[in-house]
Amino acid sequence: MSCWAGPRHWSGERQAEQVIRVESLSPELRGQLQALLLQRPQHFIQTTDTWPCCGSIPPRKAFYNEGAPLREQNPLRQKLPPGAEAAAVLTGELGFLAQPLGAFVRLRDPVVLGTLTEVALPSRFFCLLLGPTMPGRGYHEMGRAAAVLLSDPQFQWSVRRASNLHDLLAALDAFLEEVTVLPPGRWDPTARILPPKCLPSQHKRSPWQKQEVKGLSGPCTARAEDRHGRGLHLPSPELQRTGRLFGGLVQDVSRKASWYSSDFLDALHPQCFSAVLYIYLATVTNAITFGGLLGDATDGAQGVLESFLGTSVAGAAFCLLAGQPLTILSSTGPVLVFERLLFSFSRDHSLDYLPFRLWVGIWVATFCLVLVATEASVLVRYFTRFTEEGFCALISLIFIYDALGKMMSLTHAYPIQRPGSPAYGCLCQYPGPEGNESQWATTKPKYRDDILSMDLGLVNASLLSPFECIQQGGQPRGPGCHTVPDIALFSLLLFLTSFLFATAFKHVKTSRIFPSMVRKVLSDFSSVLAILLGCGLDAFLGLATPKLMVPTEFKPTLSGRGWLVSPFGANPWWLSVAAALPALLLSILIFMDQQITAVILNRAEYKLQKGAGFHLDLFCVAVLILLTSTLGLPWCVSATVISLAHMDSLRRESSACAPGEPPSFLGIREQRLTGLVVFILTGISIFLAPVLKFIPMPVLYGIFLYMGVAALSSIQFVKRVQLLLMPAKHQPDLLLLRHVPLNRVHLFTAIQLACLGLLWIIKSTPAAIIFPLMLLGLAGVRKALEWVFSPQELLWLDELMPEEERSIPEKGLRPEHTFGGDESQESELMYQPKVPEINISVN
Amino acid sequence: MSCWAGPRHWSGERQAEQVIRVESLSPELRGQLQALLLQRPQHFIQTTDTWPCCGSIPPRKAFYNEGAPLREQNPLRQKLPPGAEAAAVLTGELGFLAQPLGAFVRLRDPVVLGTLTEVALPSRFFCLLLGPTMPGRGYHEMGRAAAVLLSDPQFQWSVRRASNLHDLLAALDAFLEEVTVLPPGRWDPTARILPPKCLPSQHKRSPWQKQEVKGLSGPCTARAEDRHGRGLHLPSPELQRTGRLFGGLVQDVSRKASWYSSDFLDALHPQCFSAVLYIYLATVTNAITFGGLLGDATDGAQGVLESFLGTSVAGAAFCLLAGQPLTILSSTGPVLVFERLLFSFSRDHSLDYLPFRLWVGIWVATFCLVLVATEASVLVRYFTRFTEEGFCALISLIFIYDALGKMMSLTHAYPIQRPGSPAYGCLCQYPGPEGNESQWATTKPKYRDDILSMDLGLVNASLLSPFECIQQGGQPRGPGCHTVPDIALFSLLLFLTSFLFATAFKHVKTSRIFPSMVRKVLSDFSSVLAILLGCGLDAFLGLATPKLMVPTEFKPTLSGRGWLVSPFGANPWWLSVAAALPALLLSILIFMDQQITAVILNRAEYKLQKGAGFHLDLFCVAVLILLTSTLGLPWCVSATVISLAHMDSLRRESSACAPGEPPSFLGIREQRLTGLVVFILTGISIFLAPVLKFIPMPVLYGIFLYMGVAALSSIQFVKRVQLLLMPAKHQPDLLLLRHVPLNRVHLFTAIQLACLGLLWIIKSTPAAIIFPLMLLGLAGVRKALEWVFSPQELLWLDELMPEEERSIPEKGLRPEHTFGGDESQESELMYQPKVPEINISVN
Repeated sequence: MSCWAGPRHWSGERQAEQVIRVESLSPELRGQLQALLLQRPQHFIQTTDTWPCCGSIPPRKAFYNEGAPLREQNPLRQKLPPGAEAAAVLTGELGFLAQPLGAFVRLRDPVVLGTLTEVALPSRFFCLLLGPTMPGRGYHEMGRAAAVLLSDPQFQWSVRRASNLHDLLAALDAFLEEVTVLPPGRWDPTARILPPKCLPSQHKRSPWQKQEVKGLSGPCTARAEDRHGRGLHLPSPELQRTGRLFGGLVQDVSRKASWYSSDFLDALHPQCFSAVLYIYLATVTNAITFGGLLGDATDGAQGVLESFLGTSVAGAAFCLLAGQPLTILSSTGPVLVFERLLFSFSRDHSLDYLPFRLWVGIWVATFCLVLVATEASVLVRYFTRFTEEGFCALISLIFIYDALGKMMSLTHAYPIQRPGSPAYGCLCQYPGPEGNESQWATTKPKYRDDILSMDLGLVNASLLSPFECIQQGGQPRGPGCHTVPDIALFSLLLFLTSFLFATAFKHVKTSRIFPSMVRKVLSDFSSVLAILLGCGLDAFLGLATPKLMVPTEFKPTLSGRGWLVSPFGANPWWLSVAAALPALLLSILIFMDQQITAVILNRAEYKLQKGAGFHLDLFCVAVLILLTSTLGLPWCVSATVISLAHMDSLRRESSACAPGEPPSFLGIREQRLTGLVVFILTGISIFLAPVLKFIPMPVLYGIFLYMGVAALSSIQFVKRVQLLLMPAKHQPDLLLLRHVPLNRVHLFTAIQLACLGLLWIIKSTPAAIIFPLMLLGLAGVRKALEWVFSPQELLWLDELMPEEERSIPEKGLRPEHTFGGDESQESELMYQPKVPEINISVN
Repeated sequence: MSCWAGPRHWSGERQAEQVIRVESLSPELRGQLQALLLQRPQHFIQTTDTWPCCGSIPPRKAFYNEGAPLREQNPLRQKLPPGAEAAAVLTGELGFLAQPLGAFVRLRDPVVLGTLTEVALPSRFFCLLLGPTMPGRGYHEMGRAAAVLLSDPQFQWSVRRASNLHDLLAALDAFLEEVTVLPPGRWDPTARILPPKCLPSQHKRSPWQKQEVKGLSGPCTARAEDRHGRGLHLPSPELQRTGRLFGGLVQDVSRKASWYSSDFLDALHPQCFSAVLYIYLATVTNAITFGGLLGDATDGAQGVLESFLGTSVAGAAFCLLAGQPLTILSSTGPVLVFERLLFSFSRDHSLDYLPFRLWVGIWVATFCLVLVATEASVLVRYFTRFTEEGFCALISLIFIYDALGKMMSLTHAYPIQRPGSPAYGCLCQYPGPEGNESQWATTKPKYRDDILSMDLGLVNASLLSPFECIQQGGQPRGPGCHTVPDIALFSLLLFLTSFLFATAFKHVKTSRIFPSMVRKVLSDFSSVLAILLGCGLDAFLGLATPKLMVPTEFKPTLSGRGWLVSPFGANPWWLSVAAALPALLLSILIFMDQQITAVILNRAEYKLQKGAGFHLDLFCVAVLILLTSTLGLPWCVSATVISLAHMDSLRRESSACAPGEPPSFLGIREQRLTGLVVFILTGISIFLAPVLKFIPMPVLYGIFLYMGVAALSSIQFVKRVQLLLMPAKHQPDLLLLRHVPLNRVHLFTAIQLACLGLLWIIKSTPAAIIFPLMLLGLAGVRKALEWVFSPQELLWLDELMPEEERSIPEKGLRPEHTFGGDESQESELMYQPKVPEINISVN
């Protein structure tokens, strides 16, 4: 029994009348039914603490319908996406009915059904199932089934277009075709199964859905649909070769110019404030740590002050002018390694370092300009996941290695006092042999405490601590004077504390405890909170741990040089030409470092709206390298880890989402202001020494370790390394493993591991100067892998390189794995928890 | 088309003939079919690295059948339970067939079908589905469905008894009735859902299964079926009142006597060796820590030596004679608190402590004997989960508090040297004023190193460390002499390290990485490994951390007393009578402590075969209290945490289990030998000082913290406390929450928290002497809760007290929640991960 009707406006009363008129019921029954249907419905949500005690009458509302109506003031109302509709399903047992009575109503246009729905949402479908008393929960289950049917987008699509009963039954059949049947078993059917974190998109079902579904199932569906592909292999306007000199650059500039004003207006959101705080601390930490590192390695040719100044100037200029202003410039990673190598080379050959470095910079800028002119950035399409991950893993490992190395060096600076070590051997001795008890008493009356009033049996020595001793004009004597107890172990504790708490706070986001607001704050400010905790712990104990020392005077660290580097110094003239050779290597390195970071930042899954600017970015980097070389400041390129943290802190998420669904990712607040403010603050920090000196260095090392570990653990490569250790039965259900035999996956991982090991070894040996070439070699190794693995395997393990994209689809691949839209859809499933929030936060 | 036949012996050939004879096929078709069916089957398992390339022919074996046949040498063969049968399902497309051909064969007795099954398992059912080419995977899906049908125990039961087609169809209908239907949606149907960790038992389905299923689905089903109830409310022979004086004791002795020889023979298993090692370390740690605590608190009336001796003697005697030899006796928890109170009372009133204590002991023994005589132990039935958990939480908190307190006291003993503190103020001064440079040089020539050869400008002092100074006859002078640097922080590091690693190693068991063997070892030996790691770290740095100090001389810690305590000492005679009052309180405490532990140990979920001995245990404790009082040793009762750790280390698990299923819990190696050896070793440890002195105390405190935290986190109460902090949408799917409104759950938790807070406050104030009464009051509070909560709510939140068990079932409860077997079945679901391994290890 079904009823098809289509009045434009319909009150509850008229609806009830129409429902009853349809059937050939006795007038008495009709009256009873009408009275029943016009009763004011009792809504479930009104009874908050106990289950409703209603029996079969009044009819129960179906809760299983996604678009179920809710009370007007209901907080869930805000969660419903715009355009949501309700459907009403009424079922129940009626003693006075002799046979079941069913009605299925479709309205031409949805209307608000008064108090029938708790929230005044328009309803289009109305389903009534009444009948005599039946054992079991028959009607209720039927009602559930009807509600599930109505919440299915495909059924909705069909039933909205149905013109007769046959169409309706066909839609029902189509629905049943796709139903999954679970046999009875030891799995309790009442056990609730949590849905997987990432829902695969619905492309497998009919393509009409793309347009139709959005209205009802909201942004969560939209997310699954929009998140197509890795972005690289889809035709991307930024990576199309124009064929003209500087054509890419011109295109980039014209594209970004149109967004320029919005790049500042879009920053007007409180979230940007927290992002500035977080990224500022990361940048300062970075500048201090790597500045200190570089200062050590280059005998002060570059120091912490140069690091601050260079980062600030280069970063601010980049944020103002570059194509991708979300990028955070910094002097980390392989470029830093190269700079150290360059210094040791020039020292070994008695060269004047800074002038030599200036010429290298000039050549690098020149080569980079050539790369910009020839639109070489379009080659980044050849950097597949294999190259990206190798590079990412290497940078993460450098982070971890440096953090641990700095911690180790602290235990050398502040040795732990073992029982045999001369901890007690320190005495304060006064220079003149004529000192006597009376002189002692007169010169330091305020120090006459327990330490000094004791009978030492000597006249010209005291037990003052070395620092006080020097202040008093004495001389600390003894092997124990230079040891500071407890510092090394306390530093280790601070290091571990900040690392563990940063990790723990970050994971609070996925914990079940605390309201979501608290979890979000704890997670977003995990690094800041961990730093504050470490500072508090340090301040509480008051130990003399090494603190963040910002120079107090504004002058180059290397004494006797001005801010401008002289072009030749003590070097012969031909060195300015010879500098082209290391500059070539450095150019390769900077190109790879800069562009791989840019590729990662511009991945399609981050939904950037304003486009990338690969050519413009490289141009800016080239100009800035010229500038920093002239001023003798460190070279800066995009820092992958901090840039991704920057993006992560600027995520936009939907607030309206169906109940139970996680908020969906809408995009990034793309603007130039946060980065600019961060770098201006970094510059100002040169004068913030009194405030920053309370931050202990071990805490910062701990945060570095955290950043490295987080970045490392996010890449697919590391997950595949874990597979090596994992018994097959415990392996997660990766699409990768469904399509590639396990030993092939292991072979691929082993090759990647070997490449990484080789890179690490080269980085650590004197051959490190050719390291950039080796990095470029990664792409070559990837090319060579085509001889070892089939295209299908590479498709699942990596991506295909551009040439293959044209030739492969026709041959050998199974039909369901077509390319373009479908390939990207499949790759979403490859790692099921691959949602932007995870990838952004840690990559 | 179905075929019913029942020959006793059947070769593959004859089977094929019969299948073909049944149908009215053309002779040609029949020949082709016969040839096909008699082909040697290609088994899936033979092709290991790639998917089989066979099309629809040769017929594929159904892999979805649980009892699927496997190759003879297949390792899975060992996993199959005895009595397993195979069923063969053959499906495929045959081009020469015009219409589908199906056969379903049941044999009267199962026969081995030759090479058709990979493992020579007998087959009873045989299913053939062949037909013309059909688009999609029709036949394959039908074959899957048939295999699922055949693997369902209820269908098996029905179809074994079916006598005609109608019965078969009825069985099919019954199966379909129980099928669960999942609608199509955004959940990818190919996504693999892991089964829940704990499968609810199948009692909801027909009761015939208890007998029938075991054969096929093996121990994993058996486990779910055997694990009935909490044991307490099922009629337990140990807790039946006999009505005679000492009737329960006599019954216990006669019951346990029959197991006595097996109590030693059952210990012959390598697992017992690891259990001894683990429990020995825990017991020694316990004895040292709490012995040291008691020694401090009683001015040496009991010390570490007494603690070792008392634990060893009492524990060994208990293991030899008691009713539940898995119990580990120890002087921990509330009894220790009471002992401390008793000492401070006797000190405040200038009593001679040990004689007073002897009389308390005599009275306690008397009262306990009265309790044994009157069979008071049957009252433990009134200790519901509420009382158990309150007690458990209190003991766990005492563990945690003591561990943290001891760590704190270390930082007082070894203060951290802040910049202003006099770390440098120590000098070694020689007594005589006549000392001169030459005397210095002659008395200590071997010490003429850097420290001493320097010009100190003084003659009768040196910079030797205090220890060396005293050895040299000098006198350390100065405020810095008593400080040992780095120790406090290093101890804290060791403490955290051992705690974190013990926790991490324990969790390795549920990790995905490493083979199961490695995970099992790491998890089983988590405490031992954490202790070894801590010792290694300590030895590596070589700092003078406080070590486990075992006394080297065998004599009472209190100087001037013999091993036997004199009955009166300096006390007046009437004190021996007055001692009855504290003894009464102590008796209540001991009764509760001992019996709650016994109840927890004898829970039905641990599947103990040899029964409990509540009366015998209490009798043994009484006798041992008399003995230890006479010798002036600490009083010992059952230690919940260590006893459960003991049981956990003696778990028996099945090795034969269906693929993918976790090994099932078979029971505990109930025997007396491990406990006995542990306590003998504890006694010997008095002489093991040279070995044990390498264990730093902070490591042991860390292990204590771990034990306390693990015990605390396992109880339901703590999970309910977490619910207080958890937003409703993140709450786990507990049956409890399905049946009791959330605010009622919170109220119950809050009451429990208040009780715990009150107990803790009383324990910490001078009123602590009435603490045992308050503990008994827990059962009273629980009784009073019946006024606040309905019986249904209490049933889900706690358990029902014995009286209610008789009166409630008739009224108000829903039919599916009946008592006895069914109640226990439901309570399994209450906390889904509630499997014995979790409960044992941490309670």
